[in-house]
Amino acid sequence: MSNNKALPKRSENYSEWYNEVVKRANLAENSAVRGCMVIKPYGYAIWEKMQRALDDMFKATGHQNAYFPLFVPKSFLEKEEEHAEGFAKECAVVTHYRLKKNPDGKGLIVDPNAKLEEELIIRPTSEAVIWNTYKGWIQSWRDLPLLINQWANVVRWEMRTRIFLRTAEFLWQEGHTAHATKDEAVEETEKMLGVYAEFAENWMAMPVVQGVKSPSERFAGAEDTYCIEALMQDGKALQAGTSHFLGQNFAKSFDVQFVNKENQLEYAWATSWGVSTRLMGALIMAHSDDNGLVLPPKLAPIQVVIVPIYRQPEDLEKLDARILPLIENLKSKGVSVKYDTDDKYKPGYKFAEYELRGVPVRLAVGMRDLENNTVEIARRDTLSKETVSLDGIEETIVNLLDEIQTAIYDKAFKFREDNTFIVNTWDEFKVQIEKGGFVLAHWDGTAETEETIKNETKATIRCIPFNSTEESGEDVYSGKPSAKRVIFAKAY
Amino acid sequence: MSNNKALPKRSENYSEWYNEVVKRANLAENSAVRGCMVIKPYGYAIWEKMQRALDDMFKATGHQNAYFPLFVPKSFLEKEEEHAEGFAKECAVVTHYRLKKNPDGKGLIVDPNAKLEEELIIRPTSEAVIWNTYKGWIQSWRDLPLLINQWANVVRWEMRTRIFLRTAEFLWQEGHTAHATKDEAVEETEKMLGVYAEFAENWMAMPVVQGVKSPSERFAGAEDTYCIEALMQDGKALQAGTSHFLGQNFAKSFDVQFVNKENQLEYAWATSWGVSTRLMGALIMAHSDDNGLVLPPKLAPIQVVIVPIYRQPEDLEKLDARILPLIENLKSKGVSVKYDTDDKYKPGYKFAEYELRGVPVRLAVGMRDLENNTVEIARRDTLSKETVSLDGIEETIVNLLDEIQTAIYDKAFKFREDNTFIVNTWDEFKVQIEKGGFVLAHWDGTAETEETIKNETKATIRCIPFNSTEESGEDVYSGKPSAKRVIFAKAY
Repeated sequence: MSNNKALPKRSENYSEWYNEVVKRANLAENSAVRGCMVIKPYGYAIWEKMQRALDDMFKATGHQNAYFPLFVPKSFLEKEEEHAEGFAKECAVVTHYRLKKNPDGKGLIVDPNAKLEEELIIRPTSEAVIWNTYKGWIQSWRDLPLLINQWANVVRWEMRTRIFLRTAEFLWQEGHTAHATKDEAVEETEKMLGVYAEFAENWMAMPVVQGVKSPSERFAGAEDTYCIEALMQDGKALQAGTSHFLGQNFAKSFDVQFVNKENQLEYAWATSWGVSTRLMGALIMAHSDDNGLVLPPKLAPIQVVIVPIYRQPEDLEKLDARILPLIENLKSKGVSVKYDTDDKYKPGYKFAEYELRGVPVRLAVGMRDLENNTVEIARRDTLSKETVSLDGIEETIVNLLDEIQTAIYDKAFKFREDNTFIVNTWDEFKVQIEKGGFVLAHWDGTAETEETIKNETKATIRCIPFNSTEESGEDVYSGKPSAKRVIFAKAY
Repeated sequence: MSNNKALPKRSENYSEWYNEVVKRANLAENSAVRGCMVIKPYGYAIWEKMQRALDDMFKATGHQNAYFPLFVPKSFLEKEEEHAEGFAKECAVVTHYRLKKNPDGKGLIVDPNAKLEEELIIRPTSEAVIWNTYKGWIQSWRDLPLLINQWANVVRWEMRTRIFLRTAEFLWQEGHTAHATKDEAVEETEKMLGVYAEFAENWMAMPVVQGVKSPSERFAGAEDTYCIEALMQDGKALQAGTSHFLGQNFAKSFDVQFVNKENQLEYAWATSWGVSTRLMGALIMAHSDDNGLVLPPKLAPIQVVIVPIYRQPEDLEKLDARILPLIENLKSKGVSVKYDTDDKYKPGYKFAEYELRGVPVRLAVGMRDLENNTVEIARRDTLSKETVSLDGIEETIVNLLDEIQTAIYDKAFKFREDNTFIVNTWDEFKVQIEKGGFVLAHWDGTAETEETIKNETKATIRCIPFNSTEESGEDVYSGKPSAKRVIFAKAY
């Protein structure tokens, strides 16, 4: 368990608050390897819950998992030109395959005789290696659609890293699908964005806007990039997942053709889509407070903690007699429970610790509670406490977990509503962007204006929302005509 | 689906038979990246079942998952000298972190200005990076034991690769634990070997011998390596899992000390243990036959396939009416069922295909079966078929799956018994080692004799079995005294 010094306040230093929550809730830490993190057991347990939920959703939509090599030969990466350019600057490159004893002293050196003929890139993403494989898998329309997902680690050599949000190595899933028609591929791209949105909202309790990226923010090699965007508590946006329509770009680069039903050769149509351990950062920043992590019950490794309050060992026995059957009941209802009987720590310390770790529901039971057949129940999201009857406590808890899941979502939704602004003038725009939030403004559709706005305000177009209504107006900066508002924000 | 040309026979070309089973059962294929494989969806689905079972067993024994960096700085690897020497020859080395456009032509080149100050090794195993992290996690006896597991990819640059059995990149889990006392660490080492043996026998239906490696076969940096050894159908042994007692070697190399209950500083005691996608190779070679894969029901992604036999669409409707509720019933009993109504392929083709893929139970139902209220049920392990009543078919299937699981184990166990030989003379030894099997012979305990035997026969000491009885004898080669028989075999 960690120490109980107070956390920095969000209002005073959001960034420091974030780092301290990550550290003191035991989620992760920076490793000795530049830009790489260690995901600690408690953080990894949350990631496993995310993985399980997403994996079930992928399988329910017809996808299968597979595994492709960590290494991408340089020549493969080069095949799709835009893709290659997009990732070249952040590639970790393997050049040798052996070390040897240092002939001039201690330790090991790279063996100069073990230089690879062709350099291998640690995958920054797997389109190249996967489409090279698909060439052998796709001959006929009968082989399509091919709906594959991979859970893997990837490496992008980022210069400025931030734990969970931007790390050199991260964990993710990447879906890579091949289709016989453009329509099917577009439908898949949309469907998987929908899966991400559903996961963000129903599991992470984090409302998201679905939309399409402007061309300059597209994935390198994509025809279109769809995304879900969430608003963090400091008013910055966070891209939480992307789904790309890749057209026939990769099929052409890797010569993946199939015989269609009309017996003609055609290039396959592709999509790819991914979410990563970045979602951990989003989860933390969307809900947590000055007391630490706030977890939605559906992703909490421990949903309920029970802290017994006693002085004598025989009192603990009495508490056990009442609590152990209760725990069995809760487990049979699918609730994960921790009964913390560790006598190295006092109850007050434990309360603070589980608050820091975001456990949604805490029960405290002492001897007087046993006499009165009651229990103190505390909820993490509101920090409220009440004493309730032990009769029917299982149902109380199950209902409360649902209530908390909804309440966390509602709070985040209200926050986003309160921090979404319609802005029509450049002066207003500059002021509002500084304050934070989603800024809905007209954009003339040019990369030039987008770039100028970014340079002047650090705001980017997060997306052109799917549900944006047609509304003619003037670009907030250039004054040129626009048909739709887009979302501007500063972003992680 | 793959083609239906007959497989090579095991008796004629075991190695080619293995490669073809892997390929045609759609388990995996070699990738364009030297020594790296692509695990295809069907193969990955089996691996996922293995992962889930093992992960549940690790958690039930108190372990938690975490994730550590892919990269090991060269200086970390160097810290434990034996460990460094053991892995130096097979290290993939990252030396640069950026590519740039080729100024002299097309494509990308490694940017010479982006050379890393210190080379990074792709983890061949994670002791170094993990013990460097544990230094920050372990201060007091209260922090122990630390029971952590990681699911990850690792890279060992092997010169001769073999799909699943020996690949440059493979997937595995690696447990890394820290303890306050030597006894606890030894107990953990034994416990996890027991978990592996239980998994091999109860899930993979593969009998294993538990024992300890001779010093020359120890993991680099270990004080003792325990292993489970299985016998493949060609008479070669396969090491299926290892559990290492690491003593205080890594704690000393990375200076991991803790304050014990007596308030004194002590180095922590370590274990590590792992199994990998190599188990996929073991699973294939332990049970499969000349018709293809034979899977134990507990690891089969599809346990039951139902093939409808019909000519008219309205006949399929009638079959559906009887079969769909049956499938629901089976699923509610936890049985995974595939109902193959794909009309691109004929029933005979499907039968061969599911045989190739090792689906344990196949049902075929036609119109006459419907009239008679019967179904043809075929089991993959014995290739036997019978017609049984559709009444109570769910129970029949559930019982049959159990029966097959046991039968596969029993068959493999009998094979091992029939191919375990007690040998007392050098002449007998040479003859028997050539024929294959586990050879139980006396060994004088010296590395010299072990080395000579290996050079002359290619046989290695697989292990000194835990259950080996004390029995004085003479070394099969040197004639020197010996107290125990050990297992010799040629091995994968």
